Amino acid sequence: MVQKAIGGAGLRGQSAGETKLCTVGQSGSGLTYCGYDIKELAEQATFEEVAYLLFHGELPNTSELDAYIGKLKSLRELPENLKKVLELIPASAHPMDVMRTGVSMLGNLETEISFDEQQQQSDRLLATLPGIICYWYRYSHDGVRISTQSNSDSIAGHFLELLHSRPADPLHEQVMQCSLIVYAEHEFNASTFTGRVIASTLSDIHSAVTGAIGALRGPLHGGANEAAMAMIENWTSPEQAESEIMAMLARKDKIMGFGHAIYRTSDPRNALIKEWSRKLSLQSDKAHLYAVSEKVEEVMWREKELFCNADFFHASAYHFMGIPTALFTPIFVCSRVSGWAAHIMEQRANNRIIRPSADYTGSEPRSYVPISQR
Amino acid sequence: MVQKAIGGAGLRGQSAGETKLCTVGQSGSGLTYCGYDIKELAEQATFEEVAYLLFHGELPNTSELDAYIGKLKSLRELPENLKKVLELIPASAHPMDVMRTGVSMLGNLETEISFDEQQQQSDRLLATLPGIICYWYRYSHDGVRISTQSNSDSIAGHFLELLHSRPADPLHEQVMQCSLIVYAEHEFNASTFTGRVIASTLSDIHSAVTGAIGALRGPLHGGANEAAMAMIENWTSPEQAESEIMAMLARKDKIMGFGHAIYRTSDPRNALIKEWSRKLSLQSDKAHLYAVSEKVEEVMWREKELFCNADFFHASAYHFMGIPTALFTPIFVCSRVSGWAAHIMEQRANNRIIRPSADYTGSEPRSYVPISQR
Ligand SMILES: CC(C)(COP(=O)(O)OP(=O)(O)OC[C@H]1O[C@@H](n2cnc3c(N)ncnc32)[C@H](O)[C@@H]1OP(=O)(O)O)[C@@H](O)C(=O)NCCC(=O)NCCS
Ligand SMILES: CC(C)(COP(=O)(O)OP(=O)(O)OC[C@H]1O[C@@H](n2cnc3c(N)ncnc32)[C@H](O)[C@@H]1OP(=O)(O)O)[C@@H](O)C(=O)NCCC(=O)NCCS
Repeated sequence: MVQKAIGGAGLRGQSAGETKLCTVGQSGSGLTYCGYDIKELAEQATFEEVAYLLFHGELPNTSELDAYIGKLKSLRELPENLKKVLELIPASAHPMDVMRTGVSMLGNLETEISFDEQQQQSDRLLATLPGIICYWYRYSHDGVRISTQSNSDSIAGHFLELLHSRPADPLHEQVMQCSLIVYAEHEFNASTFTGRVIASTLSDIHSAVTGAIGALRGPLHGGANEAAMAMIENWTSPEQAESEIMAMLARKDKIMGFGHAIYRTSDPRNALIKEWSRKLSLQSDKAHLYAVSEKVEEVMWREKELFCNADFFHASAYHFMGIPTALFTPIFVCSRVSGWAAHIMEQRANNRIIRPSADYTGSEPRSYVPISQR
Repeated sequence: MVQKAIGGAGLRGQSAGETKLCTVGQSGSGLTYCGYDIKELAEQATFEEVAYLLFHGELPNTSELDAYIGKLKSLRELPENLKKVLELIPASAHPMDVMRTGVSMLGNLETEISFDEQQQQSDRLLATLPGIICYWYRYSHDGVRISTQSNSDSIAGHFLELLHSRPADPLHEQVMQCSLIVYAEHEFNASTFTGRVIASTLSDIHSAVTGAIGALRGPLHGGANEAAMAMIENWTSPEQAESEIMAMLARKDKIMGFGHAIYRTSDPRNALIKEWSRKLSLQSDKAHLYAVSEKVEEVMWREKELFCNADFFHASAYHFMGIPTALFTPIFVCSRVSGWAAHIMEQRANNRIIRPSADYTGSEPRSYVPISQR
């Protein structure tokens, strides 16, 4: 895959360090985790296998994977004071603010004292994040205090079960596996880079993950899947979608779910989630949203040579599974925390504080004038 | 001031963008805010004047400053649910985790919906941060629910009054003014850069400040003032300090409060806070800590050509004013939030998402092996 040249502001194309975890736009379909192509992982692996891979650099064998799944299941209970904090957050809050606050509060109750705890703390975050968001969501929206335990072995099934209070539909669980895998890791994207800058001061893992959540929240980053949903749900036909997109482009609006900082011609995650969106649409009474999405994809390429990134077909796929739009970016957190944690550990293993310089464009040196003379 | 050449990892010496706010190591004593030398500001201005300067690019006149002080005073009350969250955090928590959680919770209750609110949200953070940390500290340590109002016009005096439940000693208030001024801003340091990366996704101000707090917490960054205190408080004489430091250097320990990513021969903030530490020591029954600190400074230069950064003499200065060590880095937050907020606004005004690349050092491409064959 050849990429067009990139450069300029936002550190684009500049190296900010080394990683063993991931390549973007360098080989295979364009995304590899520890040497494995995203296409093979998304089609054949589970998210727990992928998380294990990111943490250990190798895929687990059966007994390693079973042990890891058992461990993650045992870590799902939330501390009482964390639940009380979640109950104090209103239904109107931004769910990413809830995730950020939940992780930050957990850091007060289960502070990482030594870096020897980093794997344990990472597993605890992976295990508790679905509970944090679903506990708040169900309490604030439905007035129920759910248990954060479920019978599901997978984080994919666990999330859906907490949200809907019933075991996940097997097809939905399979889609969630794919979704969590494609969202797990993406080299020095803005949220991961945030986590690494924080880790480079030798701060704790909750600080680094809290900061990363804050970065992922932005509409130019993880927030794009929610923004894409808010856009397509207004449209009832491909024809309407086409004319509305044309109008948006004429107004020079940004179309969320399109474009990428590194990929230049396509995002390999798109085909994977798009195919699941198509399959889910066959069972849905909102099937038109798939046709609408395809039309948007076609028009954006025709008009701008802009392609769908990982987020665009995630919108319709999640919607078809009955997931409220407000929880789209929090699911991204439940997955990406694996990549964040692996990068935090990698940063710590070979650390120098990340402290760039700036080009100064401000006032010349000037003398202080006492306030009485201003 | 000529600086030695720098380069290498951690983006050292690489430009990551533009700023009008600050120069480090370029002119005057080595640190300017909007063109004004830190020495003149620290000796003649108040912190509120400096915050106004960072936000508006110009120093206020008397009526502008009076209006700004009045505004900040009017914003000191904490929301009820934020106080409840602070009450749920144990006394054993890390105070920077409390700050991080407090700001994150505030973001749930007073979410920044539009960037039009950014100045108002920044002022609210400046006004509430002393209350957030002191409310938690006094509740968890002394069992009292303090009012977060005080009669003090200055943030310097307000913080000391909340902490000690009495109007601040005028000398202490003056020292705090200097401290808040020298800590306010420092170009693309790790916490500010964290805030800018988060802001570059177009996320909200609470996310950006929460992440910045997490970065400042690290012992290589803001956490150094607490680490310096933990070190010097063990030593009762300059002679003991010298032999202990020599032993630490022989073990290749890092000495907290020394060295800097940009400055090569001195940190201009040191002389300013050191002089206040000396004056405060004259009134203190722990005066030996000043002599101990001076000896450490002398030995570090003699042995390693390493110099005190802003943090080292802050440790003794704060201690002489009866401030618990646990609150040293939170005070840094109460000040630096002005610089963070100004950088967040600057990033937003000319934004591109900050997304660097990485050098890949991991596995070659390899094929997925089904788990049964591993
Ligand atoms: C992802 C993104 C932030 C990358 O930013 P970037 O590296 O600065 O983007 P590029 O340099 O490739 O942009 C090149 C041009 O295409 C335009 N462009 C990029 N994505 C666009 C989009 N989704 N809609 C409309 N125009 C877009 C840019 O505005 C830019 O135009 P300009 O040169 O006239 O300013 C950007 O594509 C974007 O904002 N996408 C929408 C948000 C999104 O989906 N984010 C999720 C990413 S996984
Ligand atoms: C501030 C700091 C993180 C800058 O990091 P940096 O840019 O990577 O530092 P430099 O490149 O200037 O370091 C050069 C050498 O001096 C050593 N050094 C720097 N600060 C030191 C210190 N405080 N004690 C002992 N050795 C130190 C480094 O280990 C390095 O040695 P090496 O080349 O053998 O590895 C670093 O000086 C430090 O850790 N200081 C202590 C923490 C502190 O006070 N932080 C507050 C900063 S305001």
